[in-house]
Amino acid sequence: MTKKIGRQSLRFENVFIKSWASAAGPTEKKGTFGSYYDFTIHDALFGENSFEAAEKRMFTECVKTLLKKASLSINKVDCLIGGDLLNQIVTSAYGARDLDLPFLGIYGACSTMAEAMLLSSMQIDGGFAENILCGTSSHFGSAERQFRFPLELGTPKPPTAQNTVTGTGVLLLSDRRLTQIKEETRIRITSGTIGKPVDPGIKDANNMGAAMAPAAASTIAAHLRELQKKPEDYDIILTGDLGTHGSDLLHILMEKLGFDIRKQHKDCGAMVFAGLPSHYSGGSGCGCCASSLASYFLSEMQKEKFRRILFVATGALLSPTVVQQGETIPGIAHAVSIELAEKHSENDISFQIESF
Amino acid sequence: MTKKIGRQSLRFENVFIKSWASAAGPTEKKGTFGSYYDFTIHDALFGENSFEAAEKRMFTECVKTLLKKASLSINKVDCLIGGDLLNQIVTSAYGARDLDLPFLGIYGACSTMAEAMLLSSMQIDGGFAENILCGTSSHFGSAERQFRFPLELGTPKPPTAQNTVTGTGVLLLSDRRLTQIKEETRIRITSGTIGKPVDPGIKDANNMGAAMAPAAASTIAAHLRELQKKPEDYDIILTGDLGTHGSDLLHILMEKLGFDIRKQHKDCGAMVFAGLPSHYSGGSGCGCCASSLASYFLSEMQKEKFRRILFVATGALLSPTVVQQGETIPGIAHAVSIELAEKHSENDISFQIESF
Repeated sequence: MTKKIGRQSLRFENVFIKSWASAAGPTEKKGTFGSYYDFTIHDALFGENSFEAAEKRMFTECVKTLLKKASLSINKVDCLIGGDLLNQIVTSAYGARDLDLPFLGIYGACSTMAEAMLLSSMQIDGGFAENILCGTSSHFGSAERQFRFPLELGTPKPPTAQNTVTGTGVLLLSDRRLTQIKEETRIRITSGTIGKPVDPGIKDANNMGAAMAPAAASTIAAHLRELQKKPEDYDIILTGDLGTHGSDLLHILMEKLGFDIRKQHKDCGAMVFAGLPSHYSGGSGCGCCASSLASYFLSEMQKEKFRRILFVATGALLSPTVVQQGETIPGIAHAVSIELAEKHSENDISFQIESF
Repeated sequence: MTKKIGRQSLRFENVFIKSWASAAGPTEKKGTFGSYYDFTIHDALFGENSFEAAEKRMFTECVKTLLKKASLSINKVDCLIGGDLLNQIVTSAYGARDLDLPFLGIYGACSTMAEAMLLSSMQIDGGFAENILCGTSSHFGSAERQFRFPLELGTPKPPTAQNTVTGTGVLLLSDRRLTQIKEETRIRITSGTIGKPVDPGIKDANNMGAAMAPAAASTIAAHLRELQKKPEDYDIILTGDLGTHGSDLLHILMEKLGFDIRKQHKDCGAMVFAGLPSHYSGGSGCGCCASSLASYFLSEMQKEKFRRILFVATGALLSPTVVQQGETIPGIAHAVSIELAEKHSENDISFQIESF
């Protein structure tokens, strides 16, 4: 089977999601996915002295939670592929240091989780790893200070603004060829599409949905065209954090590209704080779609509520420095197709056990 | 052949370096590799209004130079894997935007070039791409301002300090299976080792060599042990930017681990400004080892001066924010083995031409 399809898309045969874990903050606990997180932190500092230290602890605890759920020793993990929003991706890098893990650091703003899944899937399917941790996180306090204003200033926001999600999502991707059927989940990563930066000319750090929607449209369209799929081939086309305004824009842009995705489309950012006061256009941050995927969506997929999700993490490549110099903010989106395989028959299992 | 060796190392069979290009600044032009760069910029601004814009232009022009040297249309490039030192890796991300390239952004501080080569080699060897651009850059003005002090302050530096290299290095990695022998170079990527963050407890942003030397030692030792090699299996063990102080430390640390690498070891940081006034402990930055590799080392390898280089790019995961909060600075190093294959015989070439 050809593994590369068109310019941007890839097919995977041997990759499955063995386990997942998520953590979130106190506001997220009251939100849509509140009961699905593995744990939530009771305040923004999580017993530490800074938001950055709290984010790192949340990330590291979430990795440990996953390893416990998967009954996997950390020595069996080949590497961690991850990143976060903080300058020099300190959450992930210091997490890898504290966990003593080989580490490949990535930066894709809020597209990081899908980028990690793409790279891990290529590494596993290519035969270079058995188990890879994909992880990312964000924190309201650390991100707002870095990209916009310190929380202490109480700066008001316009309706297009989004609130960074305090959350972590971690996945364990594994090689089916090296796993006994009885230890496999049925959740497979079957294809993916590498995104291009697309720049609609936005300069406003409080309008990230508009900065990301064209990149999401570009990647979803490339995915559907290159893999010859239709929107209805997916139960859900799940974008990262376009928010309500960005989601509306995406629908219009997709229509111009010849696809109506309104029925399939859901956005983690628009969902995560739904119904809560002052959620503006929704949630954002690397941890938004990562914690949503690694809580509600994968758990419900395992229960067969959904069978096919196109996970499209969306990132705004916002740099306060170059935006102050007059540059605009490009978006980028990477897509990963997650599918529930048919149930293994008893025969498959006994056959594999015998052959061991 | 097993592709994964031990916990951290990998073997590649089908990856070669098809082309390379480098650019550097006016000080670097006077340095050790001055006559080897494809082009140099005459002043730090390169006709732009900011150091960041100058760095981006240098990077983009360097990619275009490579494509011209390789006579390759940009549409034939599957993606760009790269990063740089600037927050939100703006040089690479905006470069990918301007070049309309699928983009996988990475952050490994000054270890970025080796990380890009590892990821690209897995992607190519796994059958997911034919041509991948690996690129990285750094700029004295933009990096000093972000990590230490703005140049305009004229802040004095201690002897352990290093000067960020203004430079870009870009490589084109390609799949041998999809290339005719007559279009192949003999420069192959044969193995690699993914590094772990190692933290010796340094807090001084002017002592990066000490922060990185333990990570370099850890990765080189893992590489030699896992792949059952000796230092003398390489003509050069080429670290990124440990500088003179960091290199001395590396020799001591390697000896403790049971390896004497003094004969094989060279450091791009210690070499790049050698003989120039006020070079302190040497050069640093993503662009330091990237521009050295993509100028002097690969050019001389092609002329058979060296046959086997272990390229070990070294990064200090320095975050001014968390260091101000009391954190220490971990280092990370990734290694890639670059080897000159034997000359193809006339028979090989005529055989391959016939079989097309």
